[in-house]
Amino acid sequence: MKTDIILLDHGSGGELSDKLIKDVMLKAFDNPDLRKLGDGAVLDIGNRKLAFSTDSYVVDPVFFPGGSIGDLAVNGTVNDIAMCGAEPLYLSVGFILEEGFAISDLKKIVADMATAAEHAGVTIVTGDTKVVPKGAADKIFINTSGIGAIIGANTIADSIAKPGDKIIVSGTIADHGMTILTQREGLQFESRIESDSAPLNHMVKKMVAASSEISVLRDPTRGGVGTVLNEVADFSGVGIDIFETAIPVNKQITGVCELLGFDPLYVANEGKLLAFVSPGDADKVLDVIKGCQYGKDACIIGEVTTEHAGKVYMKTMIGGERIVHMLSGDQLPRIC
Amino acid sequence: MKTDIILLDHGSGGELSDKLIKDVMLKAFDNPDLRKLGDGAVLDIGNRKLAFSTDSYVVDPVFFPGGSIGDLAVNGTVNDIAMCGAEPLYLSVGFILEEGFAISDLKKIVADMATAAEHAGVTIVTGDTKVVPKGAADKIFINTSGIGAIIGANTIADSIAKPGDKIIVSGTIADHGMTILTQREGLQFESRIESDSAPLNHMVKKMVAASSEISVLRDPTRGGVGTVLNEVADFSGVGIDIFETAIPVNKQITGVCELLGFDPLYVANEGKLLAFVSPGDADKVLDVIKGCQYGKDACIIGEVTTEHAGKVYMKTMIGGERIVHMLSGDQLPRIC
Repeated sequence: MKTDIILLDHGSGGELSDKLIKDVMLKAFDNPDLRKLGDGAVLDIGNRKLAFSTDSYVVDPVFFPGGSIGDLAVNGTVNDIAMCGAEPLYLSVGFILEEGFAISDLKKIVADMATAAEHAGVTIVTGDTKVVPKGAADKIFINTSGIGAIIGANTIADSIAKPGDKIIVSGTIADHGMTILTQREGLQFESRIESDSAPLNHMVKKMVAASSEISVLRDPTRGGVGTVLNEVADFSGVGIDIFETAIPVNKQITGVCELLGFDPLYVANEGKLLAFVSPGDADKVLDVIKGCQYGKDACIIGEVTTEHAGKVYMKTMIGGERIVHMLSGDQLPRIC
Repeated sequence: MKTDIILLDHGSGGELSDKLIKDVMLKAFDNPDLRKLGDGAVLDIGNRKLAFSTDSYVVDPVFFPGGSIGDLAVNGTVNDIAMCGAEPLYLSVGFILEEGFAISDLKKIVADMATAAEHAGVTIVTGDTKVVPKGAADKIFINTSGIGAIIGANTIADSIAKPGDKIIVSGTIADHGMTILTQREGLQFESRIESDSAPLNHMVKKMVAASSEISVLRDPTRGGVGTVLNEVADFSGVGIDIFETAIPVNKQITGVCELLGFDPLYVANEGKLLAFVSPGDADKVLDVIKGCQYGKDACIIGEVTTEHAGKVYMKTMIGGERIVHMLSGDQLPRIC
């Protein structure tokens, strides 16, 4: 494998992404805020604690069942800010358009962004549009950055998962990634599968109001649940146990994953979160999530342990145990 | 001309850009902050007034005399925030990388960003990296978004230029755009021309400290000085007179512009600002600018008038007068 050029794997959200970010970006830009490598940075400005986050969206195709690059670009950054325990307030948007892109499609995408912003309760306040010659980009790329206000008094960070914490997932996993893949490959199934693209900020607001014992919030996008759990285990220096039978996966998604050889644990989600909550508050927080529009299928899938620090173990369906590694190799390029 | 697809002109910063932003983006996202269409939005958060801005950088080539896409991406957003009358504090960075891009080049670009951030005194606190398959993007695109703190008590905005205001340019114009063009076309000249890519925030801080009568600050990037002056005339509902003989242009740049048929008034700058200042404070502010590292060639190039509202007139070298329109048509794609 060539190591001197950028590979698709560098964008997977898995091992090689992690290496690139640590070896190149973090090395050059190193500072305490960036070093945390969270979904966003938490900054003290004036009398407020603000969350600041950015994401570029390059998903292909740009329209898919359950959404488009437009609502994905809003929901994705809204969710990254929410995962800091913050209420998203303002978004910026940067478009990179390919010469020849249909303005009718741009209008649809922009309308999807406006609807998603309204739904999430955020305002798009500033923007930028660049056009590159035909062939220099593929259709449309969107960057959104966002500012949010931290809502709770307690710190929420990847580095403070505690032994005993229960791990909640807010619903079925792998819907977004498998939807994009099947669309791209032109696969047809009897039952419709669709992206879970959704804003999670209203859910987070209720969760933070209900409990001051949420230690970690993450949305398992690129790299999926498996990769995110490894990151938390690594940053917090704890072990994680998850239970295969507890992990909610839509039946059709399970079928598609089996057919195509994908492990749902590594497939991207765009409207799900993982919450690490103290054992005393876990059921209460679970109930709050279940009461939310996008949390009906929430459940506890595992817990934090003092054993096997830095590693994620899964108790399998047949009673065995296996290590869940970070995503290694690129499952799906241009998933978000 | 086809009107149903994106043209390079839509990214020029001129007339068609303006139309796209007003007809598509503003129509969908409309809100009072966005409607101002400034270089950034000014937001009230907690006890602070903050500036928030975003820009995507798609310049080709990525390395050029005087800079690279890396320092451009930092300086560009630093300057957009400074033009709100704010001190830039934090930046986010979003990379879109093409599969196959040399990691050695990425490291150089990232090093340039780190140096530029240090020079400007801003911290890169959060980021995102996406990789797209070979051919789906051209080498590297960078988005930076930034947060700054408003430093003066007085509003600075495109809409408040006042008759009598003097118009200062902080140095020679058209250096960046002509450098990129000559590089791209492989043109060689006896004397070296180079981009003016530079951070202007330290200059703005001194200007705002020296005068409370600065009404407008703009950095004339895409579309150049001619387009920016038209935007200010339009937003403020005033006329603008500029004097051709007063506009500073490097001799080599004048030569290259003449040779290739470009009007320096429409060529992009990446380290220059335009300041509209009351007649009483203009000389004072000019002196402050001239005392700054990037302002040695600053001069007054024109003034605001009650006549020909919404239009920019130029007194020409030979004693005539002509209207300076907005840039119409794309002078140079992928200039920043």
